[in-house]
Amino acid sequence: MMELNSVEEEELAPWRSPLAKAIHKNKSLTYARYLQLATVTPEGQPTNRTIVFRGFLHQTNQLKFITDSRSQKVEQIEKNPWGEVCWYFPKTREQFRLKGKLTLVKADNPHPKLAKARQTTWQEISDNARQQFTWPNPGKTRVQAGAFELAPPDLANPLFNFCLLLLDPTKVEHLELTGEPQNRWLYQIDIYRTWSSEAINP
Amino acid sequence: MMELNSVEEEELAPWRSPLAKAIHKNKSLTYARYLQLATVTPEGQPTNRTIVFRGFLHQTNQLKFITDSRSQKVEQIEKNPWGEVCWYFPKTREQFRLKGKLTLVKADNPHPKLAKARQTTWQEISDNARQQFTWPNPGKTRVQAGAFELAPPDLANPLFNFCLLLLDPTKVEHLELTGEPQNRWLYQIDIYRTWSSEAINP
Repeated sequence: MMELNSVEEEELAPWRSPLAKAIHKNKSLTYARYLQLATVTPEGQPTNRTIVFRGFLHQTNQLKFITDSRSQKVEQIEKNPWGEVCWYFPKTREQFRLKGKLTLVKADNPHPKLAKARQTTWQEISDNARQQFTWPNPGKTRVQAGAFELAPPDLANPLFNFCLLLLDPTKVEHLELTGEPQNRWLYQIDIYRTWSSEAINP
Repeated sequence: MMELNSVEEEELAPWRSPLAKAIHKNKSLTYARYLQLATVTPEGQPTNRTIVFRGFLHQTNQLKFITDSRSQKVEQIEKNPWGEVCWYFPKTREQFRLKGKLTLVKADNPHPKLAKARQTTWQEISDNARQQFTWPNPGKTRVQAGAFELAPPDLANPLFNFCLLLLDPTKVEHLELTGEPQNRWLYQIDIYRTWSSEAINP
């Protein structure tokens, strides 16, 4: 079992302001909320897929995503909680890389704040996104189309296989391709959860 | 040392045609040639960064990229050659995930075909891309602006730190978000280097 990440209230990390600016300046592009999450398989191989940013966990620096408990990344994360997301913003030509530990918030999560966040996230996502949790087992041999036509799930209570996924960054890199020559910053957290930042060579 | 991947001529893999279509249909977006490469650190943590697709190695199914021998991914790849790229195409709303072994083609590569491919790639990239290989050590504490103003490098001969990076996919997943409900295919290679494909649940 993984440790729970801290869910204490925390101050905004110094990378939150440049990231918020990038999100704002790219908001006309739906896909600027898509980013790529890398995890590691039990065999030590990298895996990588596109996921959708769902905002920050209230009063923390943890990024929210959603996933299906039947997906391969859940098994990977349970064995190795490290993840790195790579987030490229096309309009402003900048990239954020955020590395940290992932927390899966499943149906049986005992922490009231996390259980509540899982339920709230379920209610905030689109009908289409919710519907996908009624679909047959992802990644298995394709079944007939009818199996994808179940009734819409209950809005009040998340389906059992709905997971909230949290990333608690401990290292963040920000690259601006538009600088002269380019600008790149490294943010790191220490054991007291204090952030430092440094300009580095692109 | 890594084994060299096969550089024999090979038939087009079955995922080449859908990938070629996606590249073609998204070609109005410069950043549709950007994708994210995940590798694993010696500590077993995932890393993830945006790289630029540079075409296929002649008469093979290997994807070409470039990298600086001083970058952290080179050290990672030398210890663990597995990589997975995630390639999202915004215009057609589809994703390819390609997993395989990576080959670094450095200045001392003894294989004539690979050494030639490294040189040709150096000549094909933009002046700006070539210039970056004259820059100070990437990822180190930022040095003053003057250090980024060296004379343009020789077009005929790649700088020593210029690496060609090849990905030889052995597993490819293709997801179309626009399907009803969605379409997803899995392509896998067997020990005889024969590809199979299967429709899977999204």
